[in-house]
Amino acid sequence: MDFASDNAGGASPKIMDAIVAANAGFTPAYGADEHSVAAARKLSEAFERECAVFLVATGTAANALALASLTPPWGAVFCHEDAHISDDECGAPEFFTAGAKLVGLKGAQGKITASALEDAVERFPRGLVKQVQPAALSLSQATECGTLYTLAELRGLTSIAHEAGLRVHMDGARFANAIESLGCSPADMSWRAGVDTLSLGATKCGALACEAVIVFDPARADDLPYRRKRAGHTLSKGRFLGAQMAAWLDGGHWRELARHANAMAARLAMGLAEIPGVRTPWPRQVNEVFTVLPAGMDRALRAAGARYYDWGARGLTSMQAPRADEVFVRLVTSFATTPEDVDRFLKVARSAA
Amino acid sequence: MDFASDNAGGASPKIMDAIVAANAGFTPAYGADEHSVAAARKLSEAFERECAVFLVATGTAANALALASLTPPWGAVFCHEDAHISDDECGAPEFFTAGAKLVGLKGAQGKITASALEDAVERFPRGLVKQVQPAALSLSQATECGTLYTLAELRGLTSIAHEAGLRVHMDGARFANAIESLGCSPADMSWRAGVDTLSLGATKCGALACEAVIVFDPARADDLPYRRKRAGHTLSKGRFLGAQMAAWLDGGHWRELARHANAMAARLAMGLAEIPGVRTPWPRQVNEVFTVLPAGMDRALRAAGARYYDWGARGLTSMQAPRADEVFVRLVTSFATTPEDVDRFLKVARSAA
Amino acid sequence: MDFASDNAGGASPKIMDAIVAANAGFTPAYGADEHSVAAARKLSEAFERECAVFLVATGTAANALALASLTPPWGAVFCHEDAHISDDECGAPEFFTAGAKLVGLKGAQGKITASALEDAVERFPRGLVKQVQPAALSLSQATECGTLYTLAELRGLTSIAHEAGLRVHMDGARFANAIESLGCSPADMSWRAGVDTLSLGATKCGALACEAVIVFDPARADDLPYRRKRAGHTLSKGRFLGAQMAAWLDGGHWRELARHANAMAARLAMGLAEIPGVRTPWPRQVNEVFTVLPAGMDRALRAAGARYYDWGARGLTSMQAPRADEVFVRLVTSFATTPEDVDRFLKVARSAA
Amino acid sequence: MDFASDNAGGASPKIMDAIVAANAGFTPAYGADEHSVAAARKLSEAFERECAVFLVATGTAANALALASLTPPWGAVFCHEDAHISDDECGAPEFFTAGAKLVGLKGAQGKITASALEDAVERFPRGLVKQVQPAALSLSQATECGTLYTLAELRGLTSIAHEAGLRVHMDGARFANAIESLGCSPADMSWRAGVDTLSLGATKCGALACEAVIVFDPARADDLPYRRKRAGHTLSKGRFLGAQMAAWLDGGHWRELARHANAMAARLAMGLAEIPGVRTPWPRQVNEVFTVLPAGMDRALRAAGARYYDWGARGLTSMQAPRADEVFVRLVTSFATTPEDVDRFLKVARSAA
Repeated sequence: MDFASDNAGGASPKIMDAIVAANAGFTPAYGADEHSVAAARKLSEAFERECAVFLVATGTAANALALASLTPPWGAVFCHEDAHISDDECGAPEFFTAGAKLVGLKGAQGKITASALEDAVERFPRGLVKQVQPAALSLSQATECGTLYTLAELRGLTSIAHEAGLRVHMDGARFANAIESLGCSPADMSWRAGVDTLSLGATKCGALACEAVIVFDPARADDLPYRRKRAGHTLSKGRFLGAQMAAWLDGGHWRELARHANAMAARLAMGLAEIPGVRTPWPRQVNEVFTVLPAGMDRALRAAGARYYDWGARGLTSMQAPRADEVFVRLVTSFATTPEDVDRFLKVARSAA
Repeated sequence: MDFASDNAGGASPKIMDAIVAANAGFTPAYGADEHSVAAARKLSEAFERECAVFLVATGTAANALALASLTPPWGAVFCHEDAHISDDECGAPEFFTAGAKLVGLKGAQGKITASALEDAVERFPRGLVKQVQPAALSLSQATECGTLYTLAELRGLTSIAHEAGLRVHMDGARFANAIESLGCSPADMSWRAGVDTLSLGATKCGALACEAVIVFDPARADDLPYRRKRAGHTLSKGRFLGAQMAAWLDGGHWRELARHANAMAARLAMGLAEIPGVRTPWPRQVNEVFTVLPAGMDRALRAAGARYYDWGARGLTSMQAPRADEVFVRLVTSFATTPEDVDRFLKVARSAA
Repeated sequence: MDFASDNAGGASPKIMDAIVAANAGFTPAYGADEHSVAAARKLSEAFERECAVFLVATGTAANALALASLTPPWGAVFCHEDAHISDDECGAPEFFTAGAKLVGLKGAQGKITASALEDAVERFPRGLVKQVQPAALSLSQATECGTLYTLAELRGLTSIAHEAGLRVHMDGARFANAIESLGCSPADMSWRAGVDTLSLGATKCGALACEAVIVFDPARADDLPYRRKRAGHTLSKGRFLGAQMAAWLDGGHWRELARHANAMAARLAMGLAEIPGVRTPWPRQVNEVFTVLPAGMDRALRAAGARYYDWGARGLTSMQAPRADEVFVRLVTSFATTPEDVDRFLKVARSAA
Repeated sequence: MDFASDNAGGASPKIMDAIVAANAGFTPAYGADEHSVAAARKLSEAFERECAVFLVATGTAANALALASLTPPWGAVFCHEDAHISDDECGAPEFFTAGAKLVGLKGAQGKITASALEDAVERFPRGLVKQVQPAALSLSQATECGTLYTLAELRGLTSIAHEAGLRVHMDGARFANAIESLGCSPADMSWRAGVDTLSLGATKCGALACEAVIVFDPARADDLPYRRKRAGHTLSKGRFLGAQMAAWLDGGHWRELARHANAMAARLAMGLAEIPGVRTPWPRQVNEVFTVLPAGMDRALRAAGARYYDWGARGLTSMQAPRADEVFVRLVTSFATTPEDVDRFLKVARSAA
């Protein structure tokens, strides 16, 4: 009953098999191997256009490299105030960008609103030297609240951004979960929706340690080989990354893994909805369920061995905030979650209701 | 016949098995898993003292993090002028240290001499504000020329450094090869020889992607958790690193792998020594053979499928430099090199002599 | 009628005379001259303790150097969300600190509240590696709204900060105006109130270009000579800075200049208070008057040659915000403002009422 | 008898008068004042083309800002191994460039040779990701040895640089002394000789604290307003810098000041040449005399109150290096040096011969 995070499981069997298979023999180092080359080709196919691809081992690296490529040191990066890049990466974006400023925007359930973005752009007039200059918009899809922008919302926000001269980054740590939930193509939710650079995360969705920075206009990626090397993120035995990414994409494995994770979360959310005393501040959309539990139920679940994070009151209005006898928690499912895990969790919860 | 680098092979079977075994089930993220904990414990045992350990996926990351922890931005890091940190990491040390200065020292065969270090310390008087301040000495063991400092040489250099108030870093990308060659203990070649922080490389010696920053005085490592996270080098599924390091150390596997690689290089060097027209500017000490080949032999070897790097004239005196009809090359062996590979290479070379 | 800023005037005659007098003859460079030495001594006297003093030419340099000395790159600096360091220095603190994060706190009229600071400290738990670590509190006295913390408020905030392990910076661009208004000693409003490092501004208060970073515990200032040099802020003809600071302090000149500026603002505020249609959202405390003017009056004043900045709605509640036929403006006085300037401004305003 | 540096004197009377005159009244801040505007116009006139001009208070700031504008963080800046930017600015270029690498080239008497530059370019192949990328050439005119490149030498070096895709910086801390000595126009020794960005120093040549970054192609200067602001180098009372630069250029005052300083150095050099036991390793070209003195003469001069720096053996061949009973010293003259100073120095020297 591990619902702590989608990085609590290992790699999917298919991906692990691919790593083992790629291990044999000699290959060129630093990403010139056949596996890395195949991964890049498959990504271009999946996204229906020629992309520049940079594989790395962590999501923080992917995000920070992507942002460094989109903003000068005196730039402002607009993001949600609770975005992972702002709150959970120990200042990696500031480090990689040589000191750019992340400007946190408000919005319910982890989503930036159009008006918040418009206000922000206005607050940083272009050419006003005493202020940092608007450089990029970073959108998380899915968000830190497990919610999704619709394609129309994405296009709306990226239009505002592009008109203001910003380039657009998407933190896609749960990109596969999001396209599965929206039922759209990778291209629709990225470059066709106005995204310039994507951090595509495989790790949370069944890989062991593999993320890609994808630049949709390869002509704007000249700096990234140097940035990646200089950050120590160019693996010498690059096949390790290439094999994961290739296997992840192969035959739609990524969507399959995401579909399963989403389905487990749906099963969990539906079960919880029927338990008295449990309330859910916003609907589940991907593989995360945010829910308010009675304190006693929380204790019973933990006593039964369930693992998950207390979420404080993040993202909640004061009306929704947990009362003294309640806790607000995050439950995350993954490719490795089984229906039995979910059902056992629900059973304990029901007993404690 | 791949002698391009010791990162051209994959992982040793034992290490790959350990990765596969560690893949099962759920574990805490970000290095709190049992594999990472075991790896740290085994490292402390191997080095005969309690160490602070930070696992990362690349040698560049290990070196740059270690240096950032040893120097302020206005510090000077003394290293050999051909050191990997200076010449092969695209400025990673400058990036991680926020702009410290690497000061390249001279010395034959990749080794810094005591007098070069003494001169350097004198050139940067402490308290002279217009100059960067002496902060660290970085020694590569084995060096970029595949040579070794003796333990006495190490102690001599680190004494000079400590007296001058410098802290000492060792780039141990081929540390295991070095202790095997010197026949000494890990402790003897590191903290007992005056090393404060070690970048210990497993990747070149049979791991897939695993290095450790080891701080011998744990009280001086408080900054490193933040530096590593902020650099995107804290893997969420940390078991991947932990499992490799634990398996690498287990039962002396690391020394076994290094011993094999060294032996293959010895076989290669001995074979080459008997071939007319081939000359070797300095003796082989670890798993690298630097040798001057007749141009025709070089062509024959490459035609036969041998892979290795042209080394220009790096490390050679003008007397030793290759003539017009010669090339100076580097041949690297690894755990994955077979005696058959070596013998086939020698056979082609002999035929072309 | 220039009320644009207190940097719109030149230097006071006394200070200019001192610059001219210091110009004669040869002196040692880089701050070893007699004028710089005297300035440091006078500052220690004025602050009633031995201080480490670093003179620079701009307030941005003073603030950014001070902060860099107080936070590691992975630190959080808590400041008011409208603080000069956050909004008006084009990211200088991020540049000098190698990417630390400024966390903007809320509070009416430019003042951080104790509860906002307590909440902030709680939001960044010490040792939680994924987040930047609480490092410093920066207080502006006077604030960007021209308001003042009382000494009790300062002590309250710095106590919270110190208990949480933060060090405290004060942006004293208008420090002299503040002590004059509070009628307290420099020591009372700085180290006795818990300030560790002060940016003391002379430029806005009658100097030409002179600020001091003052570290009250000289043992913690070892890094600053290097930081200043490396930032290009160590003037070779340091006498230029030393002469200004010495003359500014001499015989209470600084307090005299501040007193005059404050008095001119008081005269302006009192005059405006009597004009129908003019409203003032918060009381004047130093040399800045923030006021809402009818749009017609604003036009008349500008037509008459008055210079001042439109302040948008910064610092105002929605109740206080200017209506369509109003503008919210900032009027700043300085040592160079004359009663005649003020009275002429008021006359035009009255006519337009 | 102060020959310590050309920054040991104050400002020339004309320049001080201009500062005083500019002090009156109110002006816009941050370089929008009439004095700064006039300075920029006069610089464009002096250099015979429309330039982008950024005034700052120190040479270190000018150099570091200029370099940051010419190289990415992963760039190599080629300069002489004894260049001021490499040896005397405490790592300012590394700080401002976010960690670019200064690569020191050899060459007698402070001058980079064409072949050293060609070798350097070859050592850093474009596109080899593991190495920093060639980005800029920085030439000091006059050099740290007080020597000059001929215009032909400058053109030769900048041609090599431009062909290799480098942009060219000139450190012109003693630019005025150099054009006076060569008898050429400012344009001839800068953009017509292939210089892209010039650090033009007025401070050492009679100003109080004033330098200009001049970008000859204004289209490539868009980043500099932000870089300067962010570095704390945009003075609020910008008139202080504008007035100095305008007065310095006015009516050829800069060349007049430089001519005097050069003439004083010539007088000194000629006098020394006639004194037995004194030897000069290379001819004087600007306002610096490098000379080997008998130790007794050195003692006599210092006893008589002469101030100047011991220069170790920098720039000397082993044949030229001072013997045990000699010292190698640097004597610098300036606008403030009088013939009487020089003659008194020579008299003491002659007595001690």
